Amino acid sequence: MKKFSFEEIGGSVTAPQGFRAAGVFCDIKRLGTGKGSNKGVKRDLALIVSDATAAVAGTFTTNRVCAAPVKLCLERVAGGRAQAIVVNSGNANACTGRQGLRDVAAMARMAAEACGGGISAREVLVASTGRIGVPLPMAQVRKGIVEAARRLAGGPEAARDACEAIMTSDTRPKGICVEFMLGGKNIRLGGIAKGAGMIQPGMSQTGNRPALRPLHATMLCFLTTDAAVEGKFLQTALNEAVAKSFNRITVDGDMSTNDTVLILANGRAGNAPPGARAKEGRDFQAALDHVTLALAKKIVLDGEGASRFVTVRVTGAGSAGDADAAARAVANSALVRTSWCGGDPNWGRILCALGYSVAEVVENKIDVGYSQPGQREVLYSLKRGCPTGVSFGALCRCTTSPAFDLHINLHLGSGAAVIYAADLTEAYVDFNKGDVNDPSSLGG
Amino acid sequence: MKKFSFEEIGGSVTAPQGFRAAGVFCDIKRLGTGKGSNKGVKRDLALIVSDATAAVAGTFTTNRVCAAPVKLCLERVAGGRAQAIVVNSGNANACTGRQGLRDVAAMARMAAEACGGGISAREVLVASTGRIGVPLPMAQVRKGIVEAARRLAGGPEAARDACEAIMTSDTRPKGICVEFMLGGKNIRLGGIAKGAGMIQPGMSQTGNRPALRPLHATMLCFLTTDAAVEGKFLQTALNEAVAKSFNRITVDGDMSTNDTVLILANGRAGNAPPGARAKEGRDFQAALDHVTLALAKKIVLDGEGASRFVTVRVTGAGSAGDADAAARAVANSALVRTSWCGGDPNWGRILCALGYSVAEVVENKIDVGYSQPGQREVLYSLKRGCPTGVSFGALCRCTTSPAFDLHINLHLGSGAAVIYAADLTEAYVDFNKGDVNDPSSLGG
Repeated sequence: MKKFSFEEIGGSVTAPQGFRAAGVFCDIKRLGTGKGSNKGVKRDLALIVSDATAAVAGTFTTNRVCAAPVKLCLERVAGGRAQAIVVNSGNANACTGRQGLRDVAAMARMAAEACGGGISAREVLVASTGRIGVPLPMAQVRKGIVEAARRLAGGPEAARDACEAIMTSDTRPKGICVEFMLGGKNIRLGGIAKGAGMIQPGMSQTGNRPALRPLHATMLCFLTTDAAVEGKFLQTALNEAVAKSFNRITVDGDMSTNDTVLILANGRAGNAPPGARAKEGRDFQAALDHVTLALAKKIVLDGEGASRFVTVRVTGAGSAGDADAAARAVANSALVRTSWCGGDPNWGRILCALGYSVAEVVENKIDVGYSQPGQREVLYSLKRGCPTGVSFGALCRCTTSPAFDLHINLHLGSGAAVIYAADLTEAYVDFNKGDVNDPSSLGG
Repeated sequence: MKKFSFEEIGGSVTAPQGFRAAGVFCDIKRLGTGKGSNKGVKRDLALIVSDATAAVAGTFTTNRVCAAPVKLCLERVAGGRAQAIVVNSGNANACTGRQGLRDVAAMARMAAEACGGGISAREVLVASTGRIGVPLPMAQVRKGIVEAARRLAGGPEAARDACEAIMTSDTRPKGICVEFMLGGKNIRLGGIAKGAGMIQPGMSQTGNRPALRPLHATMLCFLTTDAAVEGKFLQTALNEAVAKSFNRITVDGDMSTNDTVLILANGRAGNAPPGARAKEGRDFQAALDHVTLALAKKIVLDGEGASRFVTVRVTGAGSAGDADAAARAVANSALVRTSWCGGDPNWGRILCALGYSVAEVVENKIDVGYSQPGQREVLYSLKRGCPTGVSFGALCRCTTSPAFDLHINLHLGSGAAVIYAADLTEAYVDFNKGDVNDPSSLGG
């Protein structure tokens, strides 16, 4: 059997056949958030449209306080078909009550009308990110939707405009596209994402919490593919991809009210839809896994104030749940994250966090080590609870790098988990504390 | 029945009859921690000694990685009697393996010998705070113990020296003493405490986690009283007092490996021991509650980098557990705590944290309000999930104060909880990130 391979190509959501996009400025950001307005990059409304109705799947925040667009998507994704996604930044349309629900339904209707060509309002999905608790400025939103529909285009520039329009405190746009063969046809799968703060997604297909509940971003991700994929398989594949990517990241441990991942598969490539067990199904999953993990990592790398990217790898836990709890306790500890900021290979704080996590741990069994990302050689500072002879300087060469892997072996079982995390810096505090004398500076 | 009253008097652990104390410098801090060394205030070893053997009770961290002195205390407090406490700062004697256990036993022996007068080594308790994972410098410790025993004295100065000697990143000593009548006798109850970082104690009598497990400081507290109190009642009273004080505070959400509260009751006042149900029992509890809560609040007020003291009051939760989870989610959220740093009356981040907590919450039932500490008037920014007309300026007058109360009513039941919390500031990050070029600056 031929090994599956895919190639990263340029572009993102408009690279697959039959997709167009646009990103425009309609003045939501100035009205909504100050600091999140990314001065130079003001676009705040994006449209992604498929030429034909597409299979759709989605995962959504499990925060019990969830935004109006999440509520709308939960209902519409269950229908299995969609054709367009409208997204605004600068205002989360969260905690906006009945007005928020009316506004999100109106956004979908406006987008369907503006796009023309027989798109049903019920096949338009909506996502929002930005300040919480402020009603959407609907006059601006309407202007933005009309303008975006007028500018809809294929090609990388339109996709990049859309990618910029979903940014809040992100410092750079995040996009990717891969190309691969499926059932003899050439397939493209592209995506854009945004993150920055309030990032520890814990999404599920239904908005209900899974047993293994991650704790807490607004992260948004929109994926497009020209593959023909049956709806139920698409949702299963997305659930699996999100579990291994967006639900494995944390910037600040706060789970947003708006986290959303959506995928549209319009079938324009003309392949036979893959089954979950067939090689084609596994190949599609592998491509989707690659795209979602790449975007998830970009979110951590561009986290608010983040100066270091740390991959926390826990092995040897008593269960998968214990591994997850242990990795998250370390990745979200204020003291561990500030030590990362300083490039300090401190293991005492790591043991402390492991000890207060809900995971079972035994002090004199724990190994703690560091490596350069992707390198096999691990420098252990602690073996079975005892400091090793590895020098402080050697450890610091790892921990003062912009990225490193932290290896924790609990030696209690076979449970394993990975969390992609960021350090806690003065820049994070400065960005998020705002200035009460300038209310527009206050975050969502 | 006469109402119980007590009076705060000067002094702390040496104010009750029959207690002496000392605090000395023996160079543990310089060897152990850099930043925690509080330049001007270098004392790092304290002794508190009762003239006669006393009833003892204690509560200890429930961190699964717990320090050698905690292990020793857990065993000895169960014996019900003690006469002396030796404490060092600058080195936590945590994650120090068998050497740590030998060292802590040696500290107790050294203290018993140095104090003379027939103190049994088995009636000496030990506590430590400071850097994790570094063996104690036992030559210095021995010198310190001998010197401290030589300087043992009653009176406020000796108590203050002891109080300084237990400080790490604390900026000021924390002590209190109250005087009250019990069974016709004049009783004094005094205490000293330290905190600063790694502060969210979750202590229990046995070191085992209670059902309502708080998450995560080193906080140490040593209490003395000349009351005659039966050991079992003393432990029950301490459990209750700690549950309402030290276990209700958080600075950074990290639970230390060393949290310890100890109380010695030497009976020198000559009262008849109070029973739990009798008025005397309730009076003793009230005095103990006052002392522990006052010391707990001093710890939050002096938390690392803290610029604001916030009392998070959750009411109307479905259960006491839900109220606790909701209050802790808010009090430990990085985004909520940075908004407090800026004095921002942001309610979106509060709702977001409530929504991802394990507590049951319903968005359109939640009230959020602010008040000056101890004042009846609450300014609500949110009622039943909807913004009120209260002006941003009026809310800011509360949230820009050095201390305010945050009121959250979930309107789902009768569960209530209070958490005393601090804001997250750039000073916290700066303090804890350390400098790898100056390893002595790196924290515990």
